[in-house]
Amino acid sequence: MKALLKDILAVVGPGNVLTGADVTQRRVDWMTGAPCQAGAIVRPADTRELSAVMRLCHAADQPVVTHGGLTGLVHGSVTSSDELAISLERLTAIEAVDPVSGTMTVQAGVPLQRVQELADDHDLQFPLDLGARGSCTIGGNIATNAGGVRVIRYGMMRQQVLGLEAVLADGTVVSSMNHMLKNNAGYDLKQLFIGSEGTLGIVTRAVLRLQPKMSSEQTALVACPSFEALTGLLQHMGHSLGGSLGTFEVMWRNHYALLTVESGRHTPPLPTDSPFYVIVESLGVDDEANATRFGQALESAFEAGLIVDAVLAQSDSQRRGIWDIREDIEGLILNLAPLFTFDISLPIPEMQAYTDQLEAALRRDWSQGRMVVFGHLGDGNLHVSISVGSDAPDTRRAVEQLVYTPLAELGGSISAEHGVGLEKRDYLALSRTPEEIALMRTLKQALDPRNLLNRHKVLAPEA
Amino acid sequence: MKALLKDILAVVGPGNVLTGADVTQRRVDWMTGAPCQAGAIVRPADTRELSAVMRLCHAADQPVVTHGGLTGLVHGSVTSSDELAISLERLTAIEAVDPVSGTMTVQAGVPLQRVQELADDHDLQFPLDLGARGSCTIGGNIATNAGGVRVIRYGMMRQQVLGLEAVLADGTVVSSMNHMLKNNAGYDLKQLFIGSEGTLGIVTRAVLRLQPKMSSEQTALVACPSFEALTGLLQHMGHSLGGSLGTFEVMWRNHYALLTVESGRHTPPLPTDSPFYVIVESLGVDDEANATRFGQALESAFEAGLIVDAVLAQSDSQRRGIWDIREDIEGLILNLAPLFTFDISLPIPEMQAYTDQLEAALRRDWSQGRMVVFGHLGDGNLHVSISVGSDAPDTRRAVEQLVYTPLAELGGSISAEHGVGLEKRDYLALSRTPEEIALMRTLKQALDPRNLLNRHKVLAPEA
Repeated sequence: MKALLKDILAVVGPGNVLTGADVTQRRVDWMTGAPCQAGAIVRPADTRELSAVMRLCHAADQPVVTHGGLTGLVHGSVTSSDELAISLERLTAIEAVDPVSGTMTVQAGVPLQRVQELADDHDLQFPLDLGARGSCTIGGNIATNAGGVRVIRYGMMRQQVLGLEAVLADGTVVSSMNHMLKNNAGYDLKQLFIGSEGTLGIVTRAVLRLQPKMSSEQTALVACPSFEALTGLLQHMGHSLGGSLGTFEVMWRNHYALLTVESGRHTPPLPTDSPFYVIVESLGVDDEANATRFGQALESAFEAGLIVDAVLAQSDSQRRGIWDIREDIEGLILNLAPLFTFDISLPIPEMQAYTDQLEAALRRDWSQGRMVVFGHLGDGNLHVSISVGSDAPDTRRAVEQLVYTPLAELGGSISAEHGVGLEKRDYLALSRTPEEIALMRTLKQALDPRNLLNRHKVLAPEA
Repeated sequence: MKALLKDILAVVGPGNVLTGADVTQRRVDWMTGAPCQAGAIVRPADTRELSAVMRLCHAADQPVVTHGGLTGLVHGSVTSSDELAISLERLTAIEAVDPVSGTMTVQAGVPLQRVQELADDHDLQFPLDLGARGSCTIGGNIATNAGGVRVIRYGMMRQQVLGLEAVLADGTVVSSMNHMLKNNAGYDLKQLFIGSEGTLGIVTRAVLRLQPKMSSEQTALVACPSFEALTGLLQHMGHSLGGSLGTFEVMWRNHYALLTVESGRHTPPLPTDSPFYVIVESLGVDDEANATRFGQALESAFEAGLIVDAVLAQSDSQRRGIWDIREDIEGLILNLAPLFTFDISLPIPEMQAYTDQLEAALRRDWSQGRMVVFGHLGDGNLHVSISVGSDAPDTRRAVEQLVYTPLAELGGSISAEHGVGLEKRDYLALSRTPEEIALMRTLKQALDPRNLLNRHKVLAPEA
């Protein structure tokens, strides 16, 4: 590796090949806080330098792992001592904003929040949003096809990307910097690099689609008397609000009660005796019209028995208070640790049976087992937190089996929005057929035959 | 081929291998009306039969062309006598509708209009819409990543597909029938088959995303005094209507005037002396609120000088009257024939300079040259019709050069929504880099190494 690093240094210049303590002082994994073990961290200044670095790595058969904001949750950025980390931290330019077409052209290392704020400055919005917004990067959002709380209205990261540029394993630069909503000139190559977690190429730049800004946001927390009412409410709000339904976030009672009365962390805006609580939001451009429509939709939901109680946020701080319950991950950790967290998706009609059976199985195997559930119901996405009193690897595997195995029969997914990385790799076959996995291997083989890019992530080594 | 057809007959049964006049009486190309020349037309009943057929074709090195509704505009379904046509006309089952999750599961041969109507029956909508809705099929919509008039609000066909099933060149069935909005379990393989025009696999089934129905539609035709005002209006309406802007269709004066006063085909709702006319629509669920907001947005556009005249449709028939001008393709043909039509896209700020220069170049080379332009401006998509008094192949190529060549420098696309097929294949390099085309070939080679699927479409044979 030493000779290679010397060649790389000649490309990226002094200060941009980090070794020793400069490597290990970085935490590569948000979940574990584990220090980076990479042979070195290479920081190219731009696509041209990265291309030259990859040509050198390709010639030397040197595997690499791309580092963005390092906020992933599936150990996708873990780098071993025989791998190089390629950090895109110097690719932070915003190259252009076109408010007419509604596009922004950025380098991969730009943090999500900067894109959101700059869009806002132009009276537009970039609708992807998630908790790590301040640290996560656009490149990482693309590589993992990030989701979040606005997917029901705007889709995932995949839908926000009009064009991108990627460097392949051999250093080839594939520039697909399309700026138009419509472009059917040949294969849509950018799709290969979105959500493939850095295993097929390294995303260096992107053209993002911006959306009209929504100046009015109505927020309510409502209580549902049954799962049937919950799904009825989803349909009702979709129908009543048309395309303005911006959020439909559900907390199972076990989640809502834990973070309010049980832990004392939040004052409950509603009593805790209903089985489901929903944060529902309507997006609009006119506060009065939006409020009227939203109020009417909730009123008719009451009349139809879909909700039994509701509180409407009358201010930003009330809105914040509602969301704080939903987003209090610290509260979950403090009250449930040691805990395992899961990000899964399944067809909405199957959710109640799934969670009931999972809870029963958990209680069967661990008398002190505890489970809380919240999620982006409209997206089919549940986040399940499970505590069984131990976080030993064997225990983790046993719990994983309980959570993931039933998904196969239901057509569910072992990963809704977090990706596969290392953590879920060995469960991939529960969500994908042998033919699908074979085709994934065909793609990997075609694009990265030497297995240099984020090797053994997503796809396990073949037996 | 004879022995192969006998084997195929044993799979699909009598009546499902068409030959002779049963083949030639079919028109394979909507544009030219050319008769089908396929060696035979094979009509499998389902995925299992198609898989068996493809295994046989693969073993015999027999190339095939998939036939859907045959409404394409780029000769993508042309089939030669040494090829078999695989018609999906028997795959017409609607397998499931899930109104809670908002999904519909269909076979590839189902016509678009049937999906639209069934969604409507469930108080939902399938938002993809285009003129060929009665004949085109979901499989064809997927294979070509169809666009249409609602892309600015709902995206192209790609955004409407949650999951799909495809048969590969060797008969392998890849079933990726995902039902959830969020699923990041491994590579999103369905993207390979969307928009690749049948060259990487044959789509047999799909899970479609349905959207909340919009019960209120406000339509206006407005006149803009300049291109600057036109793009200002796009931004203004986006901002004023938020996510409710459903359509922003522009007619250049040459188009609007030709189809109204010049040809006498339509009574002009507005005088013909403005450079641009826009059909703008707002979608909502409450007529009164939608009408109020739409009226206010138009009023402030007037005050800002973005529009100089406007007519608001007060009834369905008035709305129809406005759209009839825009959609009068027959009027274009009758008045301009022989004519060439083009489907291109480019960054919106570049459009005026592009069309002005194109018109000047046309006049330079053909004194009687004439050009009319309309398009989905918000999508960056223009449809350009050009008449130079001849439709000889040499003339076509000369005009194509004028239309396509400037797009390279502008980052435009030789195909916005029609695809590449045979018609645009030789211009692909104007819109895509050598590295992109090489990567497309890598994918084709990886998925269809014997070049059996819609060979020589999209990608020209290598020199």
